[in-house]
Amino acid sequence: MPVNLILLYVSDFIDPHRVRIHDRRFQHMRSVHQAQVGERFRVGVLNGMTGEGEVVAISERQVELNVRLNQAPPKPLPLQLIMALPRPKMLKRTLETVATLGVKDLWLINSYRVDKSYWSTPILRPEKAREHLLLGLEQAGDTRLPRIHLRKRFKPFVEDELPALARNTRALVAHPYDAQPCPAPTSEPTTLAIGPEGGFIAYEVEKLREAGLEAIHLGPRILRVETAVPVLLSRLFPLEL
Amino acid sequence: MPVNLILLYVSDFIDPHRVRIHDRRFQHMRSVHQAQVGERFRVGVLNGMTGEGEVVAISERQVELNVRLNQAPPKPLPLQLIMALPRPKMLKRTLETVATLGVKDLWLINSYRVDKSYWSTPILRPEKAREHLLLGLEQAGDTRLPRIHLRKRFKPFVEDELPALARNTRALVAHPYDAQPCPAPTSEPTTLAIGPEGGFIAYEVEKLREAGLEAIHLGPRILRVETAVPVLLSRLFPLEL
Repeated sequence: MPVNLILLYVSDFIDPHRVRIHDRRFQHMRSVHQAQVGERFRVGVLNGMTGEGEVVAISERQVELNVRLNQAPPKPLPLQLIMALPRPKMLKRTLETVATLGVKDLWLINSYRVDKSYWSTPILRPEKAREHLLLGLEQAGDTRLPRIHLRKRFKPFVEDELPALARNTRALVAHPYDAQPCPAPTSEPTTLAIGPEGGFIAYEVEKLREAGLEAIHLGPRILRVETAVPVLLSRLFPLEL
Repeated sequence: MPVNLILLYVSDFIDPHRVRIHDRRFQHMRSVHQAQVGERFRVGVLNGMTGEGEVVAISERQVELNVRLNQAPPKPLPLQLIMALPRPKMLKRTLETVATLGVKDLWLINSYRVDKSYWSTPILRPEKAREHLLLGLEQAGDTRLPRIHLRKRFKPFVEDELPALARNTRALVAHPYDAQPCPAPTSEPTTLAIGPEGGFIAYEVEKLREAGLEAIHLGPRILRVETAVPVLLSRLFPLEL
């Protein structure tokens, strides 16, 4: 797989314009790209600027790059994304996809159709989740790490937190029944809730509506969560974002 | 996982309004849904109408449903989708996703960045590919099986077939560089080419342009193929499709 961006951490810098890398990123540059002295790669500092890095030294154990960081990363989506916790296999891909698409705030919440066991997956451990988010950022060429908020109880979240999150935003829940068509793309701040496989149950949709969310549908086809996410974000936001 | 639609085959019918099922579909209805006599399921005949089936008998080995087929399946996308053959793991998901999204004609073509080994994956065997397409249809609630066209040589396809396919359609190739922004949704007949991970090479983009395709981009982020497909189709076609 290509690396569209090599993410750099503050700890990689050995002086203000030079980094030294010796982990997974180095392995990848070496084995996949057969990086050579003089070659250039797109780089970006985690939560910072992007630019170009030129290989100035490479050994069996590490690579050194001179870096010039002069470009802002892509704009974040003005979105608060709320998702019923997907099953582990899908969670991995979901974390990568939301990071790739520019989501910066993701709430993973409980729902009647979320199996309790999903909450004990190692993928939810901060360091594991972060790995998948970083892969998504590298894919997109982005540097800004999304924040994940875990809410293991549906009702307290929807009653006590969600109304304030949703206020003054375009607040939506994707739901195939008794819903309006998905609205046109705009850049306005948006709160979007996406249910589990099989959807939110009627009680949950009712609670989400009470919190200020309007139900929207995506047309006659029922989509898997991992397909629904890119479809919804493409329909809700303009191309520039 | 829920079954949004149970696909029926002509061979399932034991009289014009009754089917008998004893394969994977029966297992799923029994173990996942604990189907009971009197329960109703959405059903659809492969390449035909959809409707409702009521369980009238169930045993350890099979289930019988009375079916009423009175609804057309969702409309097909007016799209000829051309994709560089993805690696096997992604191919599976791609077949399911394109079937779910309503693609009916998929060309899988060679490209410089398609590893030769990908062409020998068992997933390309017609019966295997069909399985994944059927899963995608069941997910969407659709019945019309997509056609897959394999083209193992890039140049003959692009020179001899593509110009005729592209003629009188909105003909596009997704390409991040030197490209127009993705156009607005319309229902017009469309031909869309999507490259491999890492993209088509310059020579290939040039050949695709000569065949009448215009390069379009999806904004500042670089997407994986499996994310690019739903994003492109959502941007190119209106919600009703």
